[in-house]
Amino acid sequence: MRDHGGNIDAAVSRHGGTLAEWIDLSTGINRVPYPLPDMPPEVWTMLPTRSAQAALIEAARRAWSTRAPMLALAGAQGAIQMIPRLGRPGRARVLAPTYNEHAAALRAAGWQVEEVATLADLAGADLAVVVNPNNPDGRQHPPAALQALLERVGRLVVDESFGDMTPEMSLTPQAGRAGLLVLRSFGKFYGLAGLRLGFVLGGAAEIAALAEMAGPWPVSGAALAIGTRALADTAWAEATTRRLAEEAPRLDALAERAGWTPRGGSTLFRLYDTPQAAAAQDALARHRIWSRRFPYSDRWLRLGLPGTPAEWDRLTQALESLHAV
Amino acid sequence: MRDHGGNIDAAVSRHGGTLAEWIDLSTGINRVPYPLPDMPPEVWTMLPTRSAQAALIEAARRAWSTRAPMLALAGAQGAIQMIPRLGRPGRARVLAPTYNEHAAALRAAGWQVEEVATLADLAGADLAVVVNPNNPDGRQHPPAALQALLERVGRLVVDESFGDMTPEMSLTPQAGRAGLLVLRSFGKFYGLAGLRLGFVLGGAAEIAALAEMAGPWPVSGAALAIGTRALADTAWAEATTRRLAEEAPRLDALAERAGWTPRGGSTLFRLYDTPQAAAAQDALARHRIWSRRFPYSDRWLRLGLPGTPAEWDRLTQALESLHAV
Repeated sequence: MRDHGGNIDAAVSRHGGTLAEWIDLSTGINRVPYPLPDMPPEVWTMLPTRSAQAALIEAARRAWSTRAPMLALAGAQGAIQMIPRLGRPGRARVLAPTYNEHAAALRAAGWQVEEVATLADLAGADLAVVVNPNNPDGRQHPPAALQALLERVGRLVVDESFGDMTPEMSLTPQAGRAGLLVLRSFGKFYGLAGLRLGFVLGGAAEIAALAEMAGPWPVSGAALAIGTRALADTAWAEATTRRLAEEAPRLDALAERAGWTPRGGSTLFRLYDTPQAAAAQDALARHRIWSRRFPYSDRWLRLGLPGTPAEWDRLTQALESLHAV
Repeated sequence: MRDHGGNIDAAVSRHGGTLAEWIDLSTGINRVPYPLPDMPPEVWTMLPTRSAQAALIEAARRAWSTRAPMLALAGAQGAIQMIPRLGRPGRARVLAPTYNEHAAALRAAGWQVEEVATLADLAGADLAVVVNPNNPDGRQHPPAALQALLERVGRLVVDESFGDMTPEMSLTPQAGRAGLLVLRSFGKFYGLAGLRLGFVLGGAAEIAALAEMAGPWPVSGAALAIGTRALADTAWAEATTRRLAEEAPRLDALAERAGWTPRGGSTLFRLYDTPQAAAAQDALARHRIWSRRFPYSDRWLRLGLPGTPAEWDRLTQALESLHAV
């Protein structure tokens, strides 16, 4: 299995304690989740109905200002798994460094994958992948730049898994154009990653082909019910976007006091340049706080935002002790 | 989308009433579901951990007397979707009539599919599919016959989605042999189809390839938690198997009094030969009871077993009124 955030049980077995004692900041999953609604028993007992699936898609279309063809899947990851099989394998380019599953899934399906450093370098690829905003560094590309790129690649995959907080940067209003696939995650912004819900938007033929690959019931009844309700709750989304925007600078300030240099990120996670990422991760782990390192950097450490005041206090103390060392 | 049971919302829009007023007997999903346990918030908020995934697999191995490599997916349907992509498309044979998704998924992936009437006719296929016990007629093949067939086909898929009640007929103890894939459903016997949980057992290389296609988190946290608990609950499984065995003949007796001839089934659903399936379905629908017809038969009607005493009463009355017409 590839390197990921969210491997909290590995941290527990290496550093001790119980899962409940840890604060997992190794992912960009919102730690103040959307409140679970009461759900009728049919959510669990019945096969998800076509009308429940249609209601979710309608809620997503309203939330993202689009009428584009769209498919709900068990996480945006579900789309990452299937997109490499949409057409014959060819030459893919991925704007890197980024979430490593894109390149891995393409290679596993027989694609030749090149990681490139700039948007311009993607031109000419049979399939190009841009994570926007990017994970882990938060780099963003305006819609116009991505639309221009669309003309110069065979197929363009724009992964907006961390895009909920910046709707003005989203390509969802342009979704539906042939060759453009836009991925959205539900679990990250809504803090419900265990639900397994994500979306792919695209041209009619592409979405039909992906739906055929996914089969009739890829998403659970609970995901349909919760997703439909949450995506319609614009007040919660706006309040959460505001809170994250206020709190991300607070995390940067704590990190800077510990001697780390902010390197960007989204408002769900922040990336820091540290003197030594392995030592920094271990130091936080002694306080039962789990962070994210990257195999390609000795210095980068990524932290999700804490949730409760108690979590902020513990992280503050942990970073202060780090500074004292 | 293909013809399925579980299209209850289509029935509601055609025949009226509200979803809550209907008894959906169009599927073989147990209407007395496994009781939902309390679940900690992490089930919803966290990415499913590797240890949670391992615990589910361990529970399944104990329940099915196997140490075979195994993968949990969003329903047995998840395996049906991916198996056609395990190797190059060739000539597949499906023992028919049966659950229509096998042939459809194979054809969609480029396989040439032939539907055959006997187990012997499957020999020589690059890939052969047997649903055991079969849906809708309950036809069963003993493990020895299927093991013999395994030598004569490229790959053998045995779909045991309705196999929980007849463990003595299961091939799970033989799973792990190269070329053999065994599918298991969770949602049918445990009455939790909305959870989306199923399994595929097979050889190490085949399961590794399917895991690569499925990605790291195909199953929700709730499915992992509930599945792990339910599969360890042998008392519930035994009591449910006994109850279904007692109640299936009761349903046959009611149907016979209505002039229908039992044509088999599993103890989760029964198949009947009726004078006219469309009229029989409509008559039950007037009582807000939904049943299953098949595009290939004018006479066959399938009914799942009712759950509560009130449901049994309503079905009894509906079948009596049918007799009176």
